[in-house]
Amino acid sequence: MRIDIISVVPAILESPFNASILKRAIEKKLVEIHLHNLRDYTADSYKQIDDYQFGGGAGMVMMIEPIDKCISKLKTERHYDEIIYMTPDGKTLNQQTANELSLRKNIIILCGHYKGVDQRVRDHFITREISIGDYVLSGGELGAAVLCDAVIRLLPGVLGNETSALTDSFQDNLLAPPIYTRPANYKGWEVPEILTSGNTPKIETWREEQAYKRTAEKRPDLLRDFEE
Amino acid sequence: MRIDIISVVPAILESPFNASILKRAIEKKLVEIHLHNLRDYTADSYKQIDDYQFGGGAGMVMMIEPIDKCISKLKTERHYDEIIYMTPDGKTLNQQTANELSLRKNIIILCGHYKGVDQRVRDHFITREISIGDYVLSGGELGAAVLCDAVIRLLPGVLGNETSALTDSFQDNLLAPPIYTRPANYKGWEVPEILTSGNTPKIETWREEQAYKRTAEKRPDLLRDFEE
Repeated sequence: MRIDIISVVPAILESPFNASILKRAIEKKLVEIHLHNLRDYTADSYKQIDDYQFGGGAGMVMMIEPIDKCISKLKTERHYDEIIYMTPDGKTLNQQTANELSLRKNIIILCGHYKGVDQRVRDHFITREISIGDYVLSGGELGAAVLCDAVIRLLPGVLGNETSALTDSFQDNLLAPPIYTRPANYKGWEVPEILTSGNTPKIETWREEQAYKRTAEKRPDLLRDFEE
Repeated sequence: MRIDIISVVPAILESPFNASILKRAIEKKLVEIHLHNLRDYTADSYKQIDDYQFGGGAGMVMMIEPIDKCISKLKTERHYDEIIYMTPDGKTLNQQTANELSLRKNIIILCGHYKGVDQRVRDHFITREISIGDYVLSGGELGAAVLCDAVIRLLPGVLGNETSALTDSFQDNLLAPPIYTRPANYKGWEVPEILTSGNTPKIETWREEQAYKRTAEKRPDLLRDFEE
């Protein structure tokens, strides 16, 4: 899988791809990440990439021309399955979308910054608009990092133990059950007895019950979605 | 405002706080960010911070002791308003929670990693559990960065133009209207005529209509929440 990320501040994205699981996935050549600085695609010597809004109002708008140049250049080099724009008014990311995108080969992610991009970019270049949640960030860069992490960890071979991702929250529309590790007693706080019983079938039943109970308490909406 | 972030891979968080708006907020002393490496709070020479799950199963669990030591040390130094755990089964972050947290003075954010933390940490130390969305990430670090960004940009003085955050998506339960900048005509794609008319009251009406229309199309759930 190859992911090209277009940004006006690609520096934000350096450390997330240079540590932990994402770093190892890149080193194992399971994914390629290419960061593109939008200022390299400007025509003037000021390297201008934003300008005032038509009609007035606070906040700058990212101009169409440098974005067009960058995307068009990438598209001459290979076919892209998706050109994604990270924006708070996009479709909210969920685990299903992450699963789906993990099957793609080449993806471009455009990060909005300031007030966002000129609407014509969205109308003419973007195939999919994604939001990571109902809150506003100072730019799309952290959203792009989140999207990449959610997708890349699903690629075969990325997680050490392949069963690990399958028991995560959301993969079966249930939250994960509580987990415990040593010591069994910490300052008088004990782990549930069942977990140290060695009775695997009973432990599995307990975990399933706990997962349902926790989902019903914290996120009943997930159970409703499941029933529909 | 002071934010302490506890993580097993604090390196992930370096670049997001070292660029753009977050960097400027730190330089202007509007916020202090302190990263804590959990391995500095281990007792043994292996610096062990995780262990196998009681009851068996894939994935490692973060142990309670180093987390207790780190949080307890911080709490001797100052009062914390919130000790937040980033986890996919927490309460989903939204703009209202970001607004609320932007009024706090001292916050600890604990990042889960691997399968998460020992449940006793959540039962005894955590005051609030936050998820940034319905998807699983390889750790809570990107979630912590997202939460910090959403909160810090709301602090007075962080954004250059103070009216900018107020016209964002979600602040009034509406998505933002489309925005455009120069050139007015790009390869035949023109900006809506109204925006170059100079008629400010009409432009405001158009923007409001567009914001409603876009919200009704893309996120009717936001309008329903508003009516309730």
